[in-house]
Amino acid sequence: MIITCKKGAPQAEIDKIVHDFEQRGLEVNLITGKDYNVFGIVGDTTNIDDKQMMSNPWIENVQRVSAPYKKVNRLFHPQDTVVDVAGIKVGGKEKIVVIGGPCSVEGLEQICDLAHDVKEAGGCMLRGGAYKPRTSPYAFQGLGSKGIEYLVEARRQTGLPIVSEIMSIDKIDEFVENVDLIQVGARNMQNFDLLKALGKINKPILLKRGLCNTIEEWLMSAEYIMASGNENVILCERGIRTFEKYTRNTLDLSVVQIVKRKSHLPIIIDPSHATGDWELVESMALAAIAAGADGLIVEVHRNPECAWSDGQQCLKPEKFKTMIEKGRAIANVIGRGM
Amino acid sequence: MIITCKKGAPQAEIDKIVHDFEQRGLEVNLITGKDYNVFGIVGDTTNIDDKQMMSNPWIENVQRVSAPYKKVNRLFHPQDTVVDVAGIKVGGKEKIVVIGGPCSVEGLEQICDLAHDVKEAGGCMLRGGAYKPRTSPYAFQGLGSKGIEYLVEARRQTGLPIVSEIMSIDKIDEFVENVDLIQVGARNMQNFDLLKALGKINKPILLKRGLCNTIEEWLMSAEYIMASGNENVILCERGIRTFEKYTRNTLDLSVVQIVKRKSHLPIIIDPSHATGDWELVESMALAAIAAGADGLIVEVHRNPECAWSDGQQCLKPEKFKTMIEKGRAIANVIGRGM
Amino acid sequence: MIITCKKGAPQAEIDKIVHDFEQRGLEVNLITGKDYNVFGIVGDTTNIDDKQMMSNPWIENVQRVSAPYKKVNRLFHPQDTVVDVAGIKVGGKEKIVVIGGPCSVEGLEQICDLAHDVKEAGGCMLRGGAYKPRTSPYAFQGLGSKGIEYLVEARRQTGLPIVSEIMSIDKIDEFVENVDLIQVGARNMQNFDLLKALGKINKPILLKRGLCNTIEEWLMSAEYIMASGNENVILCERGIRTFEKYTRNTLDLSVVQIVKRKSHLPIIIDPSHATGDWELVESMALAAIAAGADGLIVEVHRNPECAWSDGQQCLKPEKFKTMIEKGRAIANVIGRGM
Amino acid sequence: MIITCKKGAPQAEIDKIVHDFEQRGLEVNLITGKDYNVFGIVGDTTNIDDKQMMSNPWIENVQRVSAPYKKVNRLFHPQDTVVDVAGIKVGGKEKIVVIGGPCSVEGLEQICDLAHDVKEAGGCMLRGGAYKPRTSPYAFQGLGSKGIEYLVEARRQTGLPIVSEIMSIDKIDEFVENVDLIQVGARNMQNFDLLKALGKINKPILLKRGLCNTIEEWLMSAEYIMASGNENVILCERGIRTFEKYTRNTLDLSVVQIVKRKSHLPIIIDPSHATGDWELVESMALAAIAAGADGLIVEVHRNPECAWSDGQQCLKPEKFKTMIEKGRAIANVIGRGM
Repeated sequence: MIITCKKGAPQAEIDKIVHDFEQRGLEVNLITGKDYNVFGIVGDTTNIDDKQMMSNPWIENVQRVSAPYKKVNRLFHPQDTVVDVAGIKVGGKEKIVVIGGPCSVEGLEQICDLAHDVKEAGGCMLRGGAYKPRTSPYAFQGLGSKGIEYLVEARRQTGLPIVSEIMSIDKIDEFVENVDLIQVGARNMQNFDLLKALGKINKPILLKRGLCNTIEEWLMSAEYIMASGNENVILCERGIRTFEKYTRNTLDLSVVQIVKRKSHLPIIIDPSHATGDWELVESMALAAIAAGADGLIVEVHRNPECAWSDGQQCLKPEKFKTMIEKGRAIANVIGRGM
Repeated sequence: MIITCKKGAPQAEIDKIVHDFEQRGLEVNLITGKDYNVFGIVGDTTNIDDKQMMSNPWIENVQRVSAPYKKVNRLFHPQDTVVDVAGIKVGGKEKIVVIGGPCSVEGLEQICDLAHDVKEAGGCMLRGGAYKPRTSPYAFQGLGSKGIEYLVEARRQTGLPIVSEIMSIDKIDEFVENVDLIQVGARNMQNFDLLKALGKINKPILLKRGLCNTIEEWLMSAEYIMASGNENVILCERGIRTFEKYTRNTLDLSVVQIVKRKSHLPIIIDPSHATGDWELVESMALAAIAAGADGLIVEVHRNPECAWSDGQQCLKPEKFKTMIEKGRAIANVIGRGM
Repeated sequence: MIITCKKGAPQAEIDKIVHDFEQRGLEVNLITGKDYNVFGIVGDTTNIDDKQMMSNPWIENVQRVSAPYKKVNRLFHPQDTVVDVAGIKVGGKEKIVVIGGPCSVEGLEQICDLAHDVKEAGGCMLRGGAYKPRTSPYAFQGLGSKGIEYLVEARRQTGLPIVSEIMSIDKIDEFVENVDLIQVGARNMQNFDLLKALGKINKPILLKRGLCNTIEEWLMSAEYIMASGNENVILCERGIRTFEKYTRNTLDLSVVQIVKRKSHLPIIIDPSHATGDWELVESMALAAIAAGADGLIVEVHRNPECAWSDGQQCLKPEKFKTMIEKGRAIANVIGRGM
Repeated sequence: MIITCKKGAPQAEIDKIVHDFEQRGLEVNLITGKDYNVFGIVGDTTNIDDKQMMSNPWIENVQRVSAPYKKVNRLFHPQDTVVDVAGIKVGGKEKIVVIGGPCSVEGLEQICDLAHDVKEAGGCMLRGGAYKPRTSPYAFQGLGSKGIEYLVEARRQTGLPIVSEIMSIDKIDEFVENVDLIQVGARNMQNFDLLKALGKINKPILLKRGLCNTIEEWLMSAEYIMASGNENVILCERGIRTFEKYTRNTLDLSVVQIVKRKSHLPIIIDPSHATGDWELVESMALAAIAAGADGLIVEVHRNPECAWSDGQQCLKPEKFKTMIEKGRAIANVIGRGM
């Protein structure tokens, strides 16, 4: 941690700052410049609040040298983490996984039919929303427990592990019992109570990046889960909010390699929510594979025009299949199975 | 709602779209252009999902004419809503309210001392965090129930109504019993389960705008609370996330008049979180008053350098007092008490 | 164009609006709703200023149905445009082009050596900055005319067409005489005087997207060039500015298919400026190819640590070569040469 | 400047980095941490390119301690700069200036009438665009030299100094001869050739912040002008681009105090372009005054509905007058004339 003091800071203030750090067992190095005094703090600064230090009016600036995350950090865990989702391995040099399914579970038949479609196309997990975060209180809010029940039946028929989004702590038991990969949606990425609770179970977690959250904040949310004891975290990029209006969100594919540099956790891409436009899904899915992603999560629906939510971003099963075939060829080029 | 169909859409498709709307009791007007066909849909389109319609490949674009919110909408509720917080009126032509207090409750003495400071300076409510949303799992997470208890004692001593942030549904009873104005923080603005639950109580809610949420999404979150039955909502702008790095967030003061045009709900400003920098708080507080805000919520601490959280954005009590004095003079200029 | 009038607009105002449009030869269709009156305007609205109309206090909203660009618009020019750069074809079903070279021309030997490297690796054009837009007045500003002269010699030795950035109108003669593909940089995307001047020459233009410009504004800048008479425009995405701090910019690859849907112009990707980080360049280059881009422009330097500008984002020639080899394999998968 | 080296960087690399800095006359302090080695560089680092250093693969991060600007920097020029515009003083403790006028000069009578209106309302300078940067090539592009001529006549009649935007270098002579305050628009904030040319004249420059430019980049553009010799620079904030769609741009009023802390230059606010909505202009103008701005530039038109550009954001003269009256009262509260 590097702390810059303003020109003219009284010696007593400087001594006080040095003293405070030394009391916490940190080593302080002072560099005297012409316009500023700079302190370099050596030691474990993870639990020092850098913003807090700015309350001292003599401090001009505080900059971290080390990242504020530990368990997530590749520096302290150089080998790739491979997460096991009911037998499907995600991350490292494992095959690229493809998760498919509708935005919302709409009925038993719909989800079972789609599960067969997804499996037949080459998908290895089934997604489906039972509890839906919707911007409008007047929009369809999901089938709830019925939805989970139907997903379980679809898994029974196809063997595909199931992925679904959790929205509140009181549903954790239901999810632990039934769901194979528990998704934390973008809007809940900083629902810290939920993250802590999910840190206490041992099911794998799919942690989506918030719409306006930095990579650092995203990794800190993964740190919440891991610090509470659950190390089975898969990250998922789904687009960020920018000024552009022709797409729903802007898919940031450079995160794939940045996350792999900073962390050992697997990362998958959601081209459906990122673009909000089925015509863009295939090209972004192929781009994600070329960029090195560990997997894809894609919305699929037999009849998108009649989907109960997000139909505009759903692929029909045959297009989903084509996407997987092309993706597999690209995966081979970069030396990865799919 | 205006729907644009692509050139060359087959008549059968057009008929189908018209038929679907008519079945929902809506009136459809067709305008035939050279390059597009455009439908104007008349009637209550609140529960039509505009994004969903884009799944039809013949539809080029869908645009709303009416806002997607009803209860929040000034169009259907022209007079200003005035929210009563334990006797303090907020909104309309009422006095501008000033809420002050520390980021976190740190102890009984701290919060009681500050409550007296806030009252003495001219503040009319006391804020203090008991449950704290922190980016890092290693940062101070709040005193929890003890913090609420201390706030209650501070209210007993000063008579100031208390404001505190709720982070999960399971604390609702505690908040209803003890807190006068229940804050939903920026990170929970789209925690829809929490919003629905808060819609079922009758305590006033302070709904902060999410860091990257549009005004429309913010009003939709207020709609969630109101649609569930609780009409006592105060909006609070606290800065949005932009590319700028010299401030923590960018305070968007134009929202004051936009919110007043679109909605009848009161709106207050949080210059502390918006700037993250105590040296900017006074100027932004005065600007907020000049812009027509119904109130301010400002962080105050006797010793910001030792605050357990967010000290860098806290005013000392004497500076808080000066801010109120100057603010009152500006309020008078624009014909408002404070 | 769809115009929404507020509830209660007097009939005289409505008549006036209708009359104004009819005088311009447009057809007006009125749809009367409960809360709003909506006009649909049929005809060529390209030269109507939609923002301007908002000055009428009775008008609530104005929305375009047609895009504001014509010459750029695929609707009126369905087949792909292929731009010829000194014999190299860009766009349509032509081979994916790879442009390589240093950020800045640093000397005759440097640029000639690199030209041979680029050619040997499989690149088909040479880039090099002679006039450099630098944030700081104290940074290296480019070799100017000397730089152009050295590029010309590098072309003579290798046969590679040359690409360089123009910064002001007074250099147009020099560029027309010497440069094969004239680049307009991100910062000059809305330097309209420069665009108009470039519309009057017949050399191909490489138009970079501005850091914070929407796709629509970018296409409008291409429209400036085309409307002045020069139809040889290649678009180039180079990352947009977002809140994220771990990358220099956020590369928006979804623009590839969006641009291809809206326009017939070729589009290439600059992964070097987009990421500002050589370690990310290869993965983003491969992703761009998978997404369907018509080409790449990549910074290459023999000794990035000593580059006079932007060394942090330069590939060494051997890495550039590897990138092209992998890229070619992906291009084949998606049915395209490279 | 603080440079962080990765764990495991070979000693030879470290020695090389130290040697390079020492050769430039800088002092290097090494701090050895467990996971990183950190160098503190003491001396004038203004002309070191921090991004460039990142090309060394052993360097993890480079952070500036000192700002990259010098002449603009308050650290080296503690007293406020007051710019004299044809006798009107801007900045320091001088009266708050109000510049008013139409977006575009539309004719001799129009601009002269408005000049009288502006003067009568209490404005002290007249603005008017003669050369207009328009997104669409089909929109009105300004009257050009005729427009400048009409402004000169309006000044002759009223005595108000005139402000107009320059778009290219070849018009500098015309502007130096006729215009009192030469505006550089947001789109040209990083048109470095133009900035350098304006640095060689002695007329005051009004430098608008680019739509997506950081405060630091903005100050660097001012540095370009000052480094070339012209120290008469007034900064103007006019809103930045964000994700919000209900306003044209987001006015960032916190820049007022940030600019005053970092720099000695005067700063004024343009609430018209920032909001793009005349109904928001007054509240944002009053907020700007309360925030401590040195002036306002506001669009005024007698008949906004018929304005040739930007009518939606123009105040009518009587509203402009009311705004000034209220503004003056707020200025008094904060101890400033207007």
